[in-house]
Amino acid sequence: MTGKIDIAAIVPKVGTLYPPPLHEDTRARVKRALGNQAGLTQFGVNLTTLPPGTSSALPHWHMREDEFVYVVSGHPTLVVGDSTESLSPGDCAGFPAGEETGHCLRNETEEDVVLLEIGTRDPGERVFYPGRDLMAETSSEAFYHHLDGTPYTDIRRRGPGED
Amino acid sequence: MTGKIDIAAIVPKVGTLYPPPLHEDTRARVKRALGNQAGLTQFGVNLTTLPPGTSSALPHWHMREDEFVYVVSGHPTLVVGDSTESLSPGDCAGFPAGEETGHCLRNETEEDVVLLEIGTRDPGERVFYPGRDLMAETSSEAFYHHLDGTPYTDIRRRGPGED
Repeated sequence: MTGKIDIAAIVPKVGTLYPPPLHEDTRARVKRALGNQAGLTQFGVNLTTLPPGTSSALPHWHMREDEFVYVVSGHPTLVVGDSTESLSPGDCAGFPAGEETGHCLRNETEEDVVLLEIGTRDPGERVFYPGRDLMAETSSEAFYHHLDGTPYTDIRRRGPGED
Repeated sequence: MTGKIDIAAIVPKVGTLYPPPLHEDTRARVKRALGNQAGLTQFGVNLTTLPPGTSSALPHWHMREDEFVYVVSGHPTLVVGDSTESLSPGDCAGFPAGEETGHCLRNETEEDVVLLEIGTRDPGERVFYPGRDLMAETSSEAFYHHLDGTPYTDIRRRGPGED
């Protein structure tokens, strides 16, 4: 027995659960849950591929979970609030829980971007999306809610070409 | 403001706190605390360089903290219990809290190994080192104890040439 993770055995998740039309920029996103494959439960580790034109997420911030991103390959644009910055392989960024500034990474190049994403798992987590009527309660069945608490309906994973 | 981490601004930690002579295999280890630099507190992220002949740690397991390692460059040997396996860039491994099998990575090559290491932070953490009279209580002042609870003395960071 060794602890090496068999990445090829991981079923990738394509697209996101965002309610349409908010899913458009992320529907080609591909995530492989490395940490789950190893039986880790305290934090998630995703190997995430962003094809050209794809974002890692809508700009968001986490109420209770720290987040860290490391650029494996490609040149994503880091978006934090109103600022943008081009990153290169080996660059990294961190987003402490509770810092109320929206962040995400966008692939504005012609080459794939590959990221390693780490985030704590907290059952009381809420995620906010500045400027949008959207909030995630990641432990709730509905997952996505309007800011008044009303759940979105028809939440399911939509990849390329799935409506 | 963007969240990109200024890696060059991080003061590296060279060597380990292991009580001599247990520090010999790790004294050339260099760690840069990426997560701390970004203000993350829930998990640690270290960029760790292992020069030839250097180990990431003594074989150990964590009582309460999940651990994840990603190979950035080089070809470390992953040690898990009695098994060994050579890893390559892009390979990764995970070690769930409480799995009582000692693990570490050793650089048995002539080139540097660079790792990204992630571990939860838990104030009640204990680390065990199979076959050795050593236990770490990472929140205690003494840090390293014998298995009977007696603290080791003269615990300090020792890098190359420091005794």
